[in-house]
Amino acid sequence: MRSKQARYLGLDVGGTKCAAVLGTAGGRIIARTQWPSQAPRGPGAMIDELTVRGRALAPVDGLAGIGVSIGGPLDAPRGIIYSPPNLPGWDGIELRAILAEKFNLPVEKVRIEHDAAACALAEYRWGAGRSVRRLIYLTCGTGFGAGIVLDGQAYYGAAGRSAEFGHVRYRCDGPAAFGKTGSFEAFAAGSGIGRIAVWKYPSRRWTADSSAPEPTGRQVAQCAEQGDAEARDVLRINAQAVGHGAAVLADVFFPEVILLGSLARYLDKNWLRQVRQAFAEEALPDAVKLCRLRPAGLGARLGELSSLAAALQPAAGGMAPA
Amino acid sequence: MRSKQARYLGLDVGGTKCAAVLGTAGGRIIARTQWPSQAPRGPGAMIDELTVRGRALAPVDGLAGIGVSIGGPLDAPRGIIYSPPNLPGWDGIELRAILAEKFNLPVEKVRIEHDAAACALAEYRWGAGRSVRRLIYLTCGTGFGAGIVLDGQAYYGAAGRSAEFGHVRYRCDGPAAFGKTGSFEAFAAGSGIGRIAVWKYPSRRWTADSSAPEPTGRQVAQCAEQGDAEARDVLRINAQAVGHGAAVLADVFFPEVILLGSLARYLDKNWLRQVRQAFAEEALPDAVKLCRLRPAGLGARLGELSSLAAALQPAAGGMAPA
Repeated sequence: MRSKQARYLGLDVGGTKCAAVLGTAGGRIIARTQWPSQAPRGPGAMIDELTVRGRALAPVDGLAGIGVSIGGPLDAPRGIIYSPPNLPGWDGIELRAILAEKFNLPVEKVRIEHDAAACALAEYRWGAGRSVRRLIYLTCGTGFGAGIVLDGQAYYGAAGRSAEFGHVRYRCDGPAAFGKTGSFEAFAAGSGIGRIAVWKYPSRRWTADSSAPEPTGRQVAQCAEQGDAEARDVLRINAQAVGHGAAVLADVFFPEVILLGSLARYLDKNWLRQVRQAFAEEALPDAVKLCRLRPAGLGARLGELSSLAAALQPAAGGMAPA
Repeated sequence: MRSKQARYLGLDVGGTKCAAVLGTAGGRIIARTQWPSQAPRGPGAMIDELTVRGRALAPVDGLAGIGVSIGGPLDAPRGIIYSPPNLPGWDGIELRAILAEKFNLPVEKVRIEHDAAACALAEYRWGAGRSVRRLIYLTCGTGFGAGIVLDGQAYYGAAGRSAEFGHVRYRCDGPAAFGKTGSFEAFAAGSGIGRIAVWKYPSRRWTADSSAPEPTGRQVAQCAEQGDAEARDVLRINAQAVGHGAAVLADVFFPEVILLGSLARYLDKNWLRQVRQAFAEEALPDAVKLCRLRPAGLGARLGELSSLAAALQPAAGGMAPA
């Protein structure tokens, strides 16, 4: 049984930075720390630092559980990581078993979740999708991933694989991502904004730095705010792709809620309006009527709450008490 | 408790014909009957005939349960039908409650399933997807629907809605279905073959009957067998669409099995080979590796077994013993 005083450790493992948080089942963060991943050093040294940093946060009477949010591909239920592109050397790393041993916890108390799924779980517990039966979170960040939560559990497929919605083809033409022309990742990710800009307006020089010809999403957004018609067009194409991606998922899952990640936080209301319009035009009227499409509710706190939400997921069925 | 002698009634409600079967939990069909739907007479008369025909099949010691396979849109768990295009007047018909009353059974013993989901459930129990955790059945018939079975239960979304995968857009151009240009339904359904033929080869006369300019899938297949290059091209486009549709679902669900319905039965091995090739080219290598893509296993028996499978679904959680 988890008491009200129980403390959970959440670990966020990324290619650029890592973070550890200590929190409660109610979603209160008690302590946090973050550090540069230094991913090239490989999984051994990275896991050692995760352990040292995690132990430093842990209370003297021990941890009630550990959760990890990490990019795929991975076998989430078994907690095995299979070479995420941003984590060199993490090939078949049995992270769940390793952390259980390092923290001297039974393996059932360590839970590994795909990062998009972990965000969806946090929104399900404390955010804009509280207790809905079917919730989808679209990362709209560097990538375009979908975290799917059904009845309070992250959906995983065969061999514990997570949805790779960004790989689905959106158009026959356009920029490429995942090695696939016109994929949703290519158009609808945050990084898609720069890709769309260079594809749609190839003769324009978007940045002063000729070694980085693709502008960032923020650079395009700044141009658009100043009335730049081409930049506005690029954002419109991105918004439309996000809306159409949400429409595919709505027609298939009929979720109660689809939540939008990073882009919805740093782009303006106009972008959100365009996403919603594209969604309403593309999905079945019945699916649109039954689904709320809105920005994630936890804002900047989503990162740290996602690994805590992972820690709170029970090994099988049911939910930990909030 | 269901005894080994328990008898279940399966009702298949279509726009052209209806059928009733009496069967066992093990999938043995004891008796069957079918009749023309005469759909224009509306739900009242149709349900009366379903009742009379069903009662005539029922054993003297009563039925252990009733299952219905019917087209959407519907709220499957609640058993309410919302105006399927082929069933005029079925607007908000509380079929589950009505049948429970007519057959004098508790409502928990009557189960309504979306037709694609009912086929998937039958394949899960007795066919080519036996006991796999994640199974998707693609109808590939008049329409292009997806029945999704997760852990032995049909997946339903908000308000009990079933996936409408045929509504998802496949291409920006092409024929239309569901009022949507280039939808998967337009390309990948059995009826898509005729649509593709007229779209791709508009100046060709495909049929002798000028009032029916679209050929049937069988007509195109016959031309192809005789070496007709255009007909082969049409079938190839259809096969590619089916393969790409399966790829979308594989990238999202990572199912262990995707099964193909009607077209896989009446088209040749070449069609199946093209579907598989398109699937392997379009989906993530990991998803392809983890998923078997093959024809449904129950063949011509799938129709009657699907309504029986619906009858065997318990009201919530768990499976009836086989």
